[in-house]
Amino acid sequence: MKILLDAMGGDNAPDATIKGAINAINQIEAEIILIGNEDIIRKKVKEICNKELEEVSDRLSIKNTTETIEMEDTPTLAIKHKKDSSMVVGFKMLKQGEGDVFISAGNSGALLTGATLLVGRIKGIDRPALAGILPAHNSRLLLIDSGANTNCKPINLLQFAQMSTIYLRNTFGIEKPAIGLLNIGTEETKGNELTKESYKLLKEKSEELGINFVGNVEGRDAFSGKIDAIVTDGFTGNIFLKAVEGIGRLVKVSLKENFLKNIFTKIAAIPSLPAIEGLQKSMDYKSYGGALFLGVKKPVVKAHGSSDETLFEFTIKQAENFVKNKAVDKMIEEFEKVNKN
Amino acid sequence: MKILLDAMGGDNAPDATIKGAINAINQIEAEIILIGNEDIIRKKVKEICNKELEEVSDRLSIKNTTETIEMEDTPTLAIKHKKDSSMVVGFKMLKQGEGDVFISAGNSGALLTGATLLVGRIKGIDRPALAGILPAHNSRLLLIDSGANTNCKPINLLQFAQMSTIYLRNTFGIEKPAIGLLNIGTEETKGNELTKESYKLLKEKSEELGINFVGNVEGRDAFSGKIDAIVTDGFTGNIFLKAVEGIGRLVKVSLKENFLKNIFTKIAAIPSLPAIEGLQKSMDYKSYGGALFLGVKKPVVKAHGSSDETLFEFTIKQAENFVKNKAVDKMIEEFEKVNKN
Repeated sequence: MKILLDAMGGDNAPDATIKGAINAINQIEAEIILIGNEDIIRKKVKEICNKELEEVSDRLSIKNTTETIEMEDTPTLAIKHKKDSSMVVGFKMLKQGEGDVFISAGNSGALLTGATLLVGRIKGIDRPALAGILPAHNSRLLLIDSGANTNCKPINLLQFAQMSTIYLRNTFGIEKPAIGLLNIGTEETKGNELTKESYKLLKEKSEELGINFVGNVEGRDAFSGKIDAIVTDGFTGNIFLKAVEGIGRLVKVSLKENFLKNIFTKIAAIPSLPAIEGLQKSMDYKSYGGALFLGVKKPVVKAHGSSDETLFEFTIKQAENFVKNKAVDKMIEEFEKVNKN
Repeated sequence: MKILLDAMGGDNAPDATIKGAINAINQIEAEIILIGNEDIIRKKVKEICNKELEEVSDRLSIKNTTETIEMEDTPTLAIKHKKDSSMVVGFKMLKQGEGDVFISAGNSGALLTGATLLVGRIKGIDRPALAGILPAHNSRLLLIDSGANTNCKPINLLQFAQMSTIYLRNTFGIEKPAIGLLNIGTEETKGNELTKESYKLLKEKSEELGINFVGNVEGRDAFSGKIDAIVTDGFTGNIFLKAVEGIGRLVKVSLKENFLKNIFTKIAAIPSLPAIEGLQKSMDYKSYGGALFLGVKKPVVKAHGSSDETLFEFTIKQAENFVKNKAVDKMIEEFEKVNKN
């Protein structure tokens, strides 16, 4: 297996991407191909571990590129014109089978455009979507679409439900994942036009498509561990995702301040630190890795823009699993079946 | 000052409302009028403290009503037909000056309909809205609209920004409250049609209306304590509110489990309990009280449907402050000025 890593994408690249790759390489079986400026990468590797790249691992290599897509670039223009950028080269390698999964923390718009234009949609899926993975009680919650499509139609949400089902079954072995519709009430008449229409469509089509649709789900019940995925449009999903992130940050800073308020609590807190760290870890949605771009023909992982080396390390391991579980191949297969019927 | 309390509204009424009122009465200066079935209320008071109502405090009294609006009632029908319900009677008393603020944890739809129909909108405000109060770093965050209006226009969001400014100035003494537009990115081109158009309108009108508009705000930055209020439509606001509530629940259960995982941590945790409680309290948005229904001519407070006695106690104290600070009168005044110009 070959993991294609956009070495130049993200706020902390290329430092964090390279360090993440070096940390991950001995924990995985796959090769990692660092895509980016070869001179810069070689220099960084030398700086980080005082070794040549080849000495670190024979499963690490470089694909040299000369351009980088910047955060302020217009997605479509960047994908069309920056042909030798790490992102465009990564997608082309993925398409041509020179790699099995592409990871990038670069310009989100360009990543989604590139995946759709250069790798291509799965037949039967109108809108590929981002599946973010959030913490839940002794479990995880898939949030799809967590930000790719600002405007959606009911048919898109139905397809998100299908994709989540296939992904969760193949990756986590959940036979009948519970899929909810993110809404502001549990009654079927609640919500805006999109949720009302989507509710009807999901109710009508779920049995036929093998979706275990559990109805409307409110955010306050979403993290109970009983719901495996919630489907929504990309605007609402992104609002939800970032509310969770914001509260995560508040918990982190509040915990720190509450514990360190005075020297007595400070000392008293020491034996509890593992528990606090456990909580922080389970609260930090970043430790649940990158978001999967579901609906395109090959595995694409959108790493968090502000990923540090630890998160890149985690995302690389997550990407290896994503390929191993063949969720994308299964998705292509199942949508083909649906289309034939 | 007279506080009108719907004794029959909410999941835990009338127990929690009556207990809350009894607990609050000695902490406030105002009178409390319990609106509901007199026989039931008298019986409950006797049960709770083995005293007659009059013996508990001479600032506690009852307004007898014979009907109750149920959670499953259709809002408009309930307000029109249940004329002797605790909610309708409460609103009429509020309108006629027989009380200064009305608190209810009953049917939300009926409460919003009743407030608009029976108390009336402030001139110049097209859509009254719910202002929820969330925790933020060493501060609080006003979220408006947190659920009253599923569909909104840019003009509504502009008015929400005006109302928040007036409320925050008069209640918390913040001279120029920082008002953000809840969005999925900080750039002005980000978001859906509503946020794009609202951004333009807010930018254009803020100076003239005395709003300190700080631009688009993402959820991940909303709790920093630097933002005083975020404006949004009621659908998005309610999604945001309930995401916060859900994560709050997850924190609570995770903390408990992480601490009680083994007996060693359990003992070690004891001295840290105040800090943990501090965190829990600052994370629990319920401890920030009820949501204010801004835009109607009198103070109306929507208590959380699942309020317990502690939360009712808190909400009663909050309602007293809401009246003391005259935020509603100031709102009427300022909107009159704007309308004249």
